[in-house]
Amino acid sequence: MKVSLIQQSCSHDKAANFKKTEGFIHQAAKDGADLIVLQELHSTLYFCQTEAVENFQAAESIPGETTQFLGKLAKKYNIVIVGSVFERRAAGIYHNTAVVFDGKEEPVGMYRKMHIPDDPAFQEKFYFTPGDLGFSPIKTRFGSLGVLVCWDQWFPEAARLMALAGADMLIYPTAIGWNPADPIDEKKRQLDSWSIIQQSHAIANGIPVIACNRTGFEEDPTNKTTGIEFWGNSFIAGPQGEIIANNTDSDFEGVVAANIDLQKSELVRQIWPFFRDRRIDAYQGLLNRFNE
Amino acid sequence: MKVSLIQQSCSHDKAANFKKTEGFIHQAAKDGADLIVLQELHSTLYFCQTEAVENFQAAESIPGETTQFLGKLAKKYNIVIVGSVFERRAAGIYHNTAVVFDGKEEPVGMYRKMHIPDDPAFQEKFYFTPGDLGFSPIKTRFGSLGVLVCWDQWFPEAARLMALAGADMLIYPTAIGWNPADPIDEKKRQLDSWSIIQQSHAIANGIPVIACNRTGFEEDPTNKTTGIEFWGNSFIAGPQGEIIANNTDSDFEGVVAANIDLQKSELVRQIWPFFRDRRIDAYQGLLNRFNE
Repeated sequence: MKVSLIQQSCSHDKAANFKKTEGFIHQAAKDGADLIVLQELHSTLYFCQTEAVENFQAAESIPGETTQFLGKLAKKYNIVIVGSVFERRAAGIYHNTAVVFDGKEEPVGMYRKMHIPDDPAFQEKFYFTPGDLGFSPIKTRFGSLGVLVCWDQWFPEAARLMALAGADMLIYPTAIGWNPADPIDEKKRQLDSWSIIQQSHAIANGIPVIACNRTGFEEDPTNKTTGIEFWGNSFIAGPQGEIIANNTDSDFEGVVAANIDLQKSELVRQIWPFFRDRRIDAYQGLLNRFNE
Repeated sequence: MKVSLIQQSCSHDKAANFKKTEGFIHQAAKDGADLIVLQELHSTLYFCQTEAVENFQAAESIPGETTQFLGKLAKKYNIVIVGSVFERRAAGIYHNTAVVFDGKEEPVGMYRKMHIPDDPAFQEKFYFTPGDLGFSPIKTRFGSLGVLVCWDQWFPEAARLMALAGADMLIYPTAIGWNPADPIDEKKRQLDSWSIIQQSHAIANGIPVIACNRTGFEEDPTNKTTGIEFWGNSFIAGPQGEIIANNTDSDFEGVVAANIDLQKSELVRQIWPFFRDRRIDAYQGLLNRFNE
């Protein structure tokens, strides 16, 4: 199966963001994509740099504008699409939600981001209620998709739970970038860490990982911080964590694609049988905040 | 604090192995080491390539020959040493055990390998009873040491549990290598995976990781397999997973050393506050073998 991810910059103009995304989806589908993964919050700017009540106006219901846009393209090209929505679930309950389509206008499943960050310039706890759907893969004709979102990528528990629930691959729509004020060696450590932790989920679980990240500079509208340089560097890794497709130009906009072979995952799990040897009798402490 | 690890090849001659180790410990101590980490089963060949009852004769009690050897050196140089013993606990109960010394002849703690592998040429389930001490860091004057052993390195759960129990660093004595018959690209994938998964434990937990691996070729005494080329490549990583010391010559024998700054770990945990955001309400499934 062919997996394509779309890495792009976004603007204030939602219609223009949709148009750019649609162009890349068209290109990827023409090139034979079976599964297309979009970045986190691809319809809008990354509005979480600041806390501003008016940003809740950008939230959409499901179904809504973004899911209708994605559903039409999934049907048109008869493909699987993983998209991302700032979801309005109810007044006062908003989620950072990934939505999966499989050749039809209606979604086949969704995942609500479970781990919510809050850091200077990434003030997501203000906007996003933590997900309550758990870590459940979404079934499609191309396998069971372990869709997680951005901050989830730092938690081995999330990847493991998706794998234990039968995910055939892990998929991370993300929006991460540099503080432009950071020195180059710190930027390198951060980017490397981001890649390594996600590659490690492939290794620990013997399944491919697809990470689709935003690119472009977005300023802080309050000018309190120096904005975010989204670092791109989207990649696809095989079940030993090996990079099989990427683009290391952090400003790249477009499609990154690779063929992945799900049969290889089982072979890898046979030579590296980690699942056989987990000490589930001794893992109780994982359910605690800290074990003093 | 200065951390030094000792990577060496071993032979059938235990006295010669001790002598080589002692020479490197002397060198590391002269160079200011506070903490010295030895590789897995450094007193002997890696005898687990085959299943042979006579190999149990190599097992030692604690205290025993290896711990006495290490304790004397820890006292002589007034340093912390992490060593490895094929432990005879009782008739029929043998463990793969890491032992920690802190400036005295008597050990201050030990860890019995929890995850036991069994793969062609790594037939450890025959020899080693799974550990029953859990994932408990060992306190020394240079911090609380999260000592794990080899196969444990593939399990994010083990690293997390050590960190949740207060480990200031993770330490992996290991003995891993290539099947000489494998093609070069597979060898590269395996070595990269081994490094990446351990670097990821530093990242996920915001603490340094020290991985000390065996080097040298050891033949399969039964000639059923083509033996093992232990791949060396020992390294020390900082709390963002960044490599701060290593030796990429897989045949290198000697000392790899770096200064590590434990105060940096807390700073890293403040900018990347993963511990704050773990969804312990949703991790119950980690205690299951599989969640169909």
